[in-house]
Amino acid sequence: MADIIIKNAYVLTMDPDKGDIESGVVVIEDGIITEVGSSTESTAEKIIDAREGVVMPGLVNTHCHAGMTLFRGYADDMPLKEWLEDHIWPAEAQAGDEDIYGGTLVACLEMIRSGTTAFADMYIHMDMVAQAVEESGMRAALSYGMLDFGDTEKADAELKKGTEFVREWNGKADGRITTMYGPHAPNTCSRDFLIRVKEQAVRDNAGIHIHVLETEAELDHMKENFGMCSIHFLKDIDFWGPDVLAAHCVWLSDGDIRILAEHKVNISHNVISNMKLASGIAPVAKLLSAGANVTLGTDGCASNNNLDMFEEMKTAALLQKVSTMDPTVLPASQVLEMATVNGAKALSINSGMLKEGYNADIIIVDMKQPHLSPAYDIASHMVYAANGKDVKTTIVNGKILMEDHEITCLDEQSILERMKRISKNLVSRINS
Amino acid sequence: MADIIIKNAYVLTMDPDKGDIESGVVVIEDGIITEVGSSTESTAEKIIDAREGVVMPGLVNTHCHAGMTLFRGYADDMPLKEWLEDHIWPAEAQAGDEDIYGGTLVACLEMIRSGTTAFADMYIHMDMVAQAVEESGMRAALSYGMLDFGDTEKADAELKKGTEFVREWNGKADGRITTMYGPHAPNTCSRDFLIRVKEQAVRDNAGIHIHVLETEAELDHMKENFGMCSIHFLKDIDFWGPDVLAAHCVWLSDGDIRILAEHKVNISHNVISNMKLASGIAPVAKLLSAGANVTLGTDGCASNNNLDMFEEMKTAALLQKVSTMDPTVLPASQVLEMATVNGAKALSINSGMLKEGYNADIIIVDMKQPHLSPAYDIASHMVYAANGKDVKTTIVNGKILMEDHEITCLDEQSILERMKRISKNLVSRINS
Repeated sequence: MADIIIKNAYVLTMDPDKGDIESGVVVIEDGIITEVGSSTESTAEKIIDAREGVVMPGLVNTHCHAGMTLFRGYADDMPLKEWLEDHIWPAEAQAGDEDIYGGTLVACLEMIRSGTTAFADMYIHMDMVAQAVEESGMRAALSYGMLDFGDTEKADAELKKGTEFVREWNGKADGRITTMYGPHAPNTCSRDFLIRVKEQAVRDNAGIHIHVLETEAELDHMKENFGMCSIHFLKDIDFWGPDVLAAHCVWLSDGDIRILAEHKVNISHNVISNMKLASGIAPVAKLLSAGANVTLGTDGCASNNNLDMFEEMKTAALLQKVSTMDPTVLPASQVLEMATVNGAKALSINSGMLKEGYNADIIIVDMKQPHLSPAYDIASHMVYAANGKDVKTTIVNGKILMEDHEITCLDEQSILERMKRISKNLVSRINS
Repeated sequence: MADIIIKNAYVLTMDPDKGDIESGVVVIEDGIITEVGSSTESTAEKIIDAREGVVMPGLVNTHCHAGMTLFRGYADDMPLKEWLEDHIWPAEAQAGDEDIYGGTLVACLEMIRSGTTAFADMYIHMDMVAQAVEESGMRAALSYGMLDFGDTEKADAELKKGTEFVREWNGKADGRITTMYGPHAPNTCSRDFLIRVKEQAVRDNAGIHIHVLETEAELDHMKENFGMCSIHFLKDIDFWGPDVLAAHCVWLSDGDIRILAEHKVNISHNVISNMKLASGIAPVAKLLSAGANVTLGTDGCASNNNLDMFEEMKTAALLQKVSTMDPTVLPASQVLEMATVNGAKALSINSGMLKEGYNADIIIVDMKQPHLSPAYDIASHMVYAANGKDVKTTIVNGKILMEDHEITCLDEQSILERMKRISKNLVSRINS
């Protein structure tokens, strides 16, 4: 007997061999999808009737700082330097374990509610982040954000901390948590440190999550200090590979694009954050044409200010169309791939498709709503008309985390109440 | 005795003299706001406890083709010419009164659900649109979209039709419906026709709603045929004034911006449609700096593909920031003004602020949600974190159209069922 059968749904499998099924079933057993088709002989304890719903793979958010949810709307509409140095960093300096734990729980609630089933995170107080992820039921690839600014002692301490985290948490929470190394960026980590991190990651068979060329300032810094851009600099030290998840990649030349594609680097496009901070426009259409694995990320809540991957999909399509003046680039089906199949590949998880043998990371979108009516093309609706609040049911690893908009895995009420206290205390600490 | 008192709310008045009230009341009588403050002595039949909610003016969508909701997701990701000529126009040719009526009702449901209380519309089958608006309880400034393509006979017939509509429907539905003239655009209407429309509008004391410089193709057409751009061409025939609502205004020179500001033209910025169709990036920050009245519109559902003004607010801010590479332009408070105060001014309605004597066009946003937690800055949350589905209660002209997410004015179920039939029939007519 199976655990869950979802029936009567429009099934958007994202499986190129199968395509969409207009009225189909998905069968789940032991956290794995065991059948996807138009009907099943199986029975299950739990039957979900998904009539007037779309069943699809959960979305994968490939660049997040979940703990920063604590700073949602704390500082906006200001120059990057002022935002970071006068507001975010001082606030982060005041944030302790409990704050980051509370922020991450709110982030998990938001992601579950808006149809994200897995995410990549790089931040501080990572034991707290991992604990929150474990409790939430979500899947995540976590990394401790390391930076040495050329300080050898700091480098040693950071690598130690990063390594401990990688080793302690990898495979935890029934395998829902995996770990990566998180060197912050080429302009905040020394060349030597980046080489050591890469060697360590290879030894531990762990991936690497890094910010690359988010801003023109980084490009200028790298050219001034190394006579080359970050992409060539990292190529030079044999950093690139399919184990690397590079966030942002805004300031790329055509040559950089070829390097990233050739080395099968996973790229996390963070369109809303890049727009809000005026970082620039990543050449996503070119990256995709070159065959690069481009995925989508929300970045942290302080520069977005939410974690809604539906918004991210729509905005990614819109910005590429207008910036290339070509309305045919990033069509809806390709954007859906970025948010599902490509994202899962970047996190090395067996999710992102509704297919036999894949993780049961699944969402159901409620289609019986004015803004999704009429419905000629489901992929178009998912990208251009829907938003995260249209998700009614979220399943991760075969476990229902939200059903009919009710959170089943966490105590939402108390998490939101705690956040009120935490944020109030934080502000008074900052102002004192 | 008042009709409705909203209490215990965070009141975002948008009234520059008053600012926000952290825990306040709004009193409504006979469709008008009679008090806004921290408390009231009044009593009312209906008390709305808006604890953990934000009460603010309903949003004003200044450029819509509500009937096109019929074509939501019908054709996407293609060049403008192919989209319009091979898909939208043939579909429109097959659409009759019942289809447009049904499409407009779905649009009204969507707008009520997402916090829009008033909109400007230009389309065909306008009697049907007006009837749907009357039934819905919404406020709208409606115009019949006229084009003559230089054909004198057609010009006469179109102006007759436009005039009849203006005169028949102005002030109807307890004053919720006002009417405008709707010459389509400078490149689809002849010079002579535009002059006649302006004269007629002045005679009827009606506003004018027109598309202007949505595409570079229009700019090229005007330069080729008249040796000047649309802005100078319309200035030449004394078309501009505060009675004009110009949609899009993407392809503007600095001189054009001065003309629009000097003549107090109302501009409807349609950022999502402009991005999706790859029309271009309107110079909104410059227009605002020049003192122009810039408002926000969704355009029709075929190029958006929803009518969510919260999405429009966020995307407008994001695109200006990244296109000017300045994160300080279009701060949240200014974007909120565009969607409320400025929009109401463009439609010549006494809405857009919570202030004594203003229309009771009011929404309540549910703040008790993970993606709006924590809350340091309410204006920021409305623009950068919220979406249309966070609106729980919508009031227009003092009448509750949605309460706690329940539509009270229309039969939502039967409207959505009818849309299924209509859209299926339409597709089979188009394909036959």
